[in-house]
Amino acid sequence: MSQESRRRYVILAEDNFGEPASKTAMGVIIYGRDEVVAVLDSTRAGRNVSEWLPGNDIPVVASLEASLPLEPTALLIGIAPPGGKIPPVWRDIIDVAIANGLDIVSGLHELVSDDAEFIAAAATAGVELIDYRRPPRRREVASGRAHRKGSHVVLTVGTDCAVGKMTVALELRRAADEAGLSTAFVPTGQTGIMIEGWGAPVDGVVSDFLQGTCEWLVEQAEDMGDWIFVEGQGAIDHPAYSAVTLGLVHGSAPDAMVLVHHVGRVLRHGWEDRDVVGAAIKPLAQNIALYETVAAAVAPSKVVAVALNTGGLDEDEARAEIAAVAESTGLPTDDPFRFGPGRLFGAIRSTLETASA
Amino acid sequence: MSQESRRRYVILAEDNFGEPASKTAMGVIIYGRDEVVAVLDSTRAGRNVSEWLPGNDIPVVASLEASLPLEPTALLIGIAPPGGKIPPVWRDIIDVAIANGLDIVSGLHELVSDDAEFIAAAATAGVELIDYRRPPRRREVASGRAHRKGSHVVLTVGTDCAVGKMTVALELRRAADEAGLSTAFVPTGQTGIMIEGWGAPVDGVVSDFLQGTCEWLVEQAEDMGDWIFVEGQGAIDHPAYSAVTLGLVHGSAPDAMVLVHHVGRVLRHGWEDRDVVGAAIKPLAQNIALYETVAAAVAPSKVVAVALNTGGLDEDEARAEIAAVAESTGLPTDDPFRFGPGRLFGAIRSTLETASA
Repeated sequence: MSQESRRRYVILAEDNFGEPASKTAMGVIIYGRDEVVAVLDSTRAGRNVSEWLPGNDIPVVASLEASLPLEPTALLIGIAPPGGKIPPVWRDIIDVAIANGLDIVSGLHELVSDDAEFIAAAATAGVELIDYRRPPRRREVASGRAHRKGSHVVLTVGTDCAVGKMTVALELRRAADEAGLSTAFVPTGQTGIMIEGWGAPVDGVVSDFLQGTCEWLVEQAEDMGDWIFVEGQGAIDHPAYSAVTLGLVHGSAPDAMVLVHHVGRVLRHGWEDRDVVGAAIKPLAQNIALYETVAAAVAPSKVVAVALNTGGLDEDEARAEIAAVAESTGLPTDDPFRFGPGRLFGAIRSTLETASA
Repeated sequence: MSQESRRRYVILAEDNFGEPASKTAMGVIIYGRDEVVAVLDSTRAGRNVSEWLPGNDIPVVASLEASLPLEPTALLIGIAPPGGKIPPVWRDIIDVAIANGLDIVSGLHELVSDDAEFIAAAATAGVELIDYRRPPRRREVASGRAHRKGSHVVLTVGTDCAVGKMTVALELRRAADEAGLSTAFVPTGQTGIMIEGWGAPVDGVVSDFLQGTCEWLVEQAEDMGDWIFVEGQGAIDHPAYSAVTLGLVHGSAPDAMVLVHHVGRVLRHGWEDRDVVGAAIKPLAQNIALYETVAAAVAPSKVVAVALNTGGLDEDEARAEIAAVAESTGLPTDDPFRFGPGRLFGAIRSTLETASA
């Protein structure tokens, strides 16, 4: 998945830019190596990405056509609807993009490069259809392999999906880089793969090979660095995605876990209007206990730090919330995206180096 | 997957008949609706299935050719190797079967009906290639739907894979039938699907849709009967398959769980020679606690009975072991395959009807 030249993206985030559902758009803008020339969201047209992400001067436009003067070379699908299907209205946008010579880059389960209509249109227009959620060809069950000696595997786990597990893993890797350590980030979802250029969309892998795929990703990362940050998925108590989460916990067999929580979220992302068991976010202490209990069933691991997403709070409120969570959990706590990852990584490093000393 | 006429199977169980790896062969012989005319296992040729399964007078033969005088109409792959790939030596056997006009029936991940060589040979010979592990076309994430009122969903869970979870679910369903109740058995693996004619191989489903598929299977079963017995998969502490297990627990949201254990098994099936964390089978009490803890994370459920596979013990030993486990766990305990499922089902029924009263 290496790229010879940088793309110029227009990112489709219709009706959702800035919301958790547009996490692919946000992640690619913040961490990606390609240029983003426009975001397509007709409900926010005329605004600028810098309102959400300071320093990113990117216009939000109302239509694909409106982005064309900015000379995009590819349309990136930047929203992840549940189940990963292409809504009918998006098909028209994709058709227009193809007709205007743009490549299509997607992380949806429904693969654009398997779609007969898109294939025909792309062939006519001479553009590429690129799917980042295509599962790897390798299909192996986990073997229970031990990690390479000297490696430290850290997995981000969450109280819900779309809380910032990828962001926290990327920020911690950055802190480890800045500390002069050899590092690797393990992308396990489409956004991370788009950013990093390797990895596997583990939720797109056949269930029997989920743990084997996670194990293999860590095995590859051990050749890249000593400090390995694995992007978590879902949540261990999520009615729809908990199996993917457990596959990552048991397949990556982390030396330590970092719990990620979006402050203020009380009901699951996307389940706010569902009156079902499992829709409520559980207290942090309960999450920590549950992750440690399930990890211990295969390879013992502790939650050694808490990373909060304090996006909805002002700075004083955020610092107060961080202090309160540190107090209640007894764990190093911070918002590594907002306040920098150095302090949290320092605490994790100290814990792991003490443990292995 | 309904069949207009019964097949006459020769079952491939090379090197493994009677072992846990041949559980598909055993299950189809005991519970299937088709006739089994021979078992192919060159290491046990000349013996008879009745040695393992009294009442089943079926010869074990050394080769596909040796089965032909018994006029089989189909070759059924009756072994499940880890990862579900077709070993090269089996390809020759399959080729001979096709050349002799036999349909091929398989439950492996590696689909025979997607194999170009088999497709060509089958077309020439005019035979069918039938895969029972092809995932369903439906790809939906779980929605958290509630069960139909009046239904009782019972999930078998295990201390390991290949301990008898399908058998226990089938036996309990039989007891419920005999008690005059309306029932359904929910096949979640290839053997159950071969036996019952419907279901989904949940370990062959893309991880993101695993829980949605389990939820949907139960939804279908609610139209078939009130007492719903769901076939479990894997084990919650299995280094390779725990995600599939959790997907079933959270996706089927059982009203009760039955823990299945193979007496005497101390190391995981297939992992006996691996010095890795997670290879040891945990004590029953620890398994019960773990299943109840993970279930409670989404929809609370208790282990209400223990089903033992006492195959390796004589009758006195078996009864003593059953009594010891009943004493140590405080739960109704029996070997429903050996001693009949009536007592265990009666206890489960009483527990569930008391709970819902």
